[in-house]
Amino acid sequence: MTDWIHRRADTAVTAELATATGQLAGIRLAVKDNIDVAGLPTTAGCPEYAYLPGVDAAAVAALRAHGATVVGKTNLDQFATGLVGTRSPFGTVENAVRPGFVAGGSSSGSAAAVARGDADIAIGTDTAGSGRVPAALHGIVGIKPTVGVVSTAGVVPACRSYDCVTIFAADLRLAGRAMGLMAAGAPARPWPADTRLAAPPNPVVAVFRALPDLDPQWRSAFDATVDRLRDQGARIVEVDPEPFLAAARLLYGGALVAERYSAVGEFVDAHPGAVDPTVASIIRAARGLPAHQLATDQAELERLRVSALGALAGADVLLAPTVPTHPTIAEVADDPIGVNSRLGTYTNFCNLFDLCAVAVPAEGTGEIPLGVTVFARAFEDAVAFDVATTICATSATRALPAAPPDTEPAWPSAIAPAHELIVFGAHLRGQPLEHQLTGLGARWAGQVRTTPRYRLAVLDTAPPKPAVTRAADGESGTAVTGERWLLSPAALGRFLAALPAPMQLGAVELEDGSWRTGFGAAGAAAESARDISEYGGWRAALAAGAVG
Amino acid sequence: MTDWIHRRADTAVTAELATATGQLAGIRLAVKDNIDVAGLPTTAGCPEYAYLPGVDAAAVAALRAHGATVVGKTNLDQFATGLVGTRSPFGTVENAVRPGFVAGGSSSGSAAAVARGDADIAIGTDTAGSGRVPAALHGIVGIKPTVGVVSTAGVVPACRSYDCVTIFAADLRLAGRAMGLMAAGAPARPWPADTRLAAPPNPVVAVFRALPDLDPQWRSAFDATVDRLRDQGARIVEVDPEPFLAAARLLYGGALVAERYSAVGEFVDAHPGAVDPTVASIIRAARGLPAHQLATDQAELERLRVSALGALAGADVLLAPTVPTHPTIAEVADDPIGVNSRLGTYTNFCNLFDLCAVAVPAEGTGEIPLGVTVFARAFEDAVAFDVATTICATSATRALPAAPPDTEPAWPSAIAPAHELIVFGAHLRGQPLEHQLTGLGARWAGQVRTTPRYRLAVLDTAPPKPAVTRAADGESGTAVTGERWLLSPAALGRFLAALPAPMQLGAVELEDGSWRTGFGAAGAAAESARDISEYGGWRAALAAGAVG
Repeated sequence: MTDWIHRRADTAVTAELATATGQLAGIRLAVKDNIDVAGLPTTAGCPEYAYLPGVDAAAVAALRAHGATVVGKTNLDQFATGLVGTRSPFGTVENAVRPGFVAGGSSSGSAAAVARGDADIAIGTDTAGSGRVPAALHGIVGIKPTVGVVSTAGVVPACRSYDCVTIFAADLRLAGRAMGLMAAGAPARPWPADTRLAAPPNPVVAVFRALPDLDPQWRSAFDATVDRLRDQGARIVEVDPEPFLAAARLLYGGALVAERYSAVGEFVDAHPGAVDPTVASIIRAARGLPAHQLATDQAELERLRVSALGALAGADVLLAPTVPTHPTIAEVADDPIGVNSRLGTYTNFCNLFDLCAVAVPAEGTGEIPLGVTVFARAFEDAVAFDVATTICATSATRALPAAPPDTEPAWPSAIAPAHELIVFGAHLRGQPLEHQLTGLGARWAGQVRTTPRYRLAVLDTAPPKPAVTRAADGESGTAVTGERWLLSPAALGRFLAALPAPMQLGAVELEDGSWRTGFGAAGAAAESARDISEYGGWRAALAAGAVG
Repeated sequence: MTDWIHRRADTAVTAELATATGQLAGIRLAVKDNIDVAGLPTTAGCPEYAYLPGVDAAAVAALRAHGATVVGKTNLDQFATGLVGTRSPFGTVENAVRPGFVAGGSSSGSAAAVARGDADIAIGTDTAGSGRVPAALHGIVGIKPTVGVVSTAGVVPACRSYDCVTIFAADLRLAGRAMGLMAAGAPARPWPADTRLAAPPNPVVAVFRALPDLDPQWRSAFDATVDRLRDQGARIVEVDPEPFLAAARLLYGGALVAERYSAVGEFVDAHPGAVDPTVASIIRAARGLPAHQLATDQAELERLRVSALGALAGADVLLAPTVPTHPTIAEVADDPIGVNSRLGTYTNFCNLFDLCAVAVPAEGTGEIPLGVTVFARAFEDAVAFDVATTICATSATRALPAAPPDTEPAWPSAIAPAHELIVFGAHLRGQPLEHQLTGLGARWAGQVRTTPRYRLAVLDTAPPKPAVTRAADGESGTAVTGERWLLSPAALGRFLAALPAPMQLGAVELEDGSWRTGFGAAGAAAESARDISEYGGWRAALAAGAVG
């Protein structure tokens, strides 16, 4: 078993698990060995490269701060250069579910450890697919956040501009929780003021017009996944895969690989015997590339990015198979570069185009279900997460444990800047104006009740709207039931700017004594409105036929 | 006179000027000859490179759409490679104000044409200072917007990642108006949802702790400019110049110049006799640079950017001399590379760090006043513009014509996404809560009056606040005077989220019949408030002693 490069002593792990506190108490954490854990050597898959870090990488520290227990450091394609899991002097990581087949890489050991049940979550890295390919090949979940939202401090760089820290887990909720805590504790690139916090109820899902190299038996599984999303209300649109595939070719065939030489090239040159031959051939080839070719390739990449994002303009997410095929270890040995390239067909473009991604198991065929990836634009991690949740919730895979909905919100909605808005009537979930909120990327966040000092009335508008007004001092009032939405600052501003009279927004006192931004109404309009306070809320009044 | 490479026939220009309509009607426009004007050759300062474009560059088209009349194409340092104005086979551009001295470059002819009065505005480009250095050396204004907010379609690239399209004019208002129309008509990089739309009333102005290479006679002029800003209410803080200067060294001494080879290197190699010897030596030297050095330098640049922006974290703008010295043409001939480098000391870092800049004349010494540049963070063009306006308004230079204040708002506030907010009392300009708006980057935008259907009352809050409520149908009301502020969507959302009861925001009807977002108050609180409608507005009530 070559999943691990270093394991902590069982006794130490057991003791720590027993006493841990926090949201990740009792959770066993595996860490890819290109990421620092204080007191354990970081090898990046190369014993001669090893150093002993004194402090945890920022991402590791963030998870440990919430009680996660490090089990050990996992094997990887050396210097995170590969998607196969065979390029390591610590041995090839064999697939944990399908003997004889590759684990996928470069985060091979992290994914295998989770799939084998030796860890609950694992940290990986992802530049061209390393956090998604091994997830797909083990039927588990991999979250690849927007580039830069998790600090890479304490991570051995592969391609510095595109490196991401990722999370593997067997189920999506746990992966999301860990990713949220990691991004909150190790922030780097700030979230914009108009971050969408949820997928719309009927998302537009883009799929590629053609899926080159996809194994035929996975084609029907992919179609079935798309059909299920359509059944759940998604609208499917087709896009041209060419700019996406062209970016992948640029990554392997162009000068972008010079970033890998910049990171570890001097070491590779100085230690000819220490480096995996395939990895060495890739990194050494980058030494002679001219700078103007890198400049040209970066400009071409930008052109492709604009083209690809233009194709996705009307879509909320892009859905693709995570890998087109599952090679055996023998196949990779026969053609280490070619098979590796083919594995990256549907993952390479992601970070180059500044997309975020969630890789989940979808339809089952054989030991390992087809893995699919949901991509979204930078910072739309919540949108990708929500669509991935829909896929898991409606598939037969075990990637989403039974749990009441909305108990664990999509991870970025707890980190990205957001404000609350309390609504009482036409903007309640399922009511006629809900779309004004969901269209702004707002996220539903549960029911609330005001303190018992309010009146509820129904305005003579179309559709009917509620007038919630505070009773004057000394007058009696009632507690009014409402719902809480989360909106980005810009979404709240836009919502207000579009709000017609007589509706107003301001602070409303809830039953817990806190004041939250919510709906009110202009005084004169509210006074002439019909009082329905006796129902205590809009839904009850609707049910009683007291509205409209 | 070598300002021009191609001029349109006088008769054609005169005829067009006479019939032009739009905000730029009658304005004569010069265009740097690395920017396409349909029907005139684009030479980029190299006759053998010339091509005849069929369409205007996006930036040119945007200005022509508003009535600007193209006079001709101006001379430049070849391929926009230089800050001196001497590197052109069309001849050295002599300074229009100070014979024997350089015009500055690379937009040498554009600045000289404006300074000579042969054009009212001119388009330049700016990668390392080309839109600012020649402005400073002619005592005129140069606006270098945030990288990417003006499209570079139809511009011969220099360093594609950092190239900007700029505006020269003799006065700041006209330059701002042209820049606003250009950015609106040729947009590329979108403005964020939290763009600041104004400098705060008392901006924090950072200056460098030391000003290496600054000519002694300009040192006192710079200090006087800083003193005047302090007198106007600015707070001055000192920052370490080192990361800024280090970035400048990287631009000249590192591999970033490979972008120039990527743009025109093949042409330079193929036409050895056609290229200016200094320009050729710079571009050819880039051919042999390795890609991994470019990757390393880009990573180092990012490190310097983070360090520099960290140093500026508490500041609204950075103020520096635009150039440290004004060399003669003979001095440049003696040491073409060295003098050029020194000219870029305070301009080179700008685009590399994704800053915007406004270069204006400040204190006068001799024929040409000291030029200073106000830098701000990406998308904070309004903040830089406002501080530059203060400098011009309080200096003896002619860069700001007498005009009523606020008639021409800082240019990005008309382009960046913004919403209106109507305020009636404590948030009026000069009132106790104005800082809540200015602290969010809000911009004051004039006085307004409601339709005569409102009541104005004073709430028993500290400070006193107004309750503006709409009269019930059939009841009489009054017109209430208020003020209009512009806020970014995120600023409006944040303002609302922080708003305490009983204040509310919603649609208010103005005297022109339009509905705008403005202040209201919760009904019960408004009813118990003391009516001061008779004064028609908060300021009148204050003056009468009727508030508080």
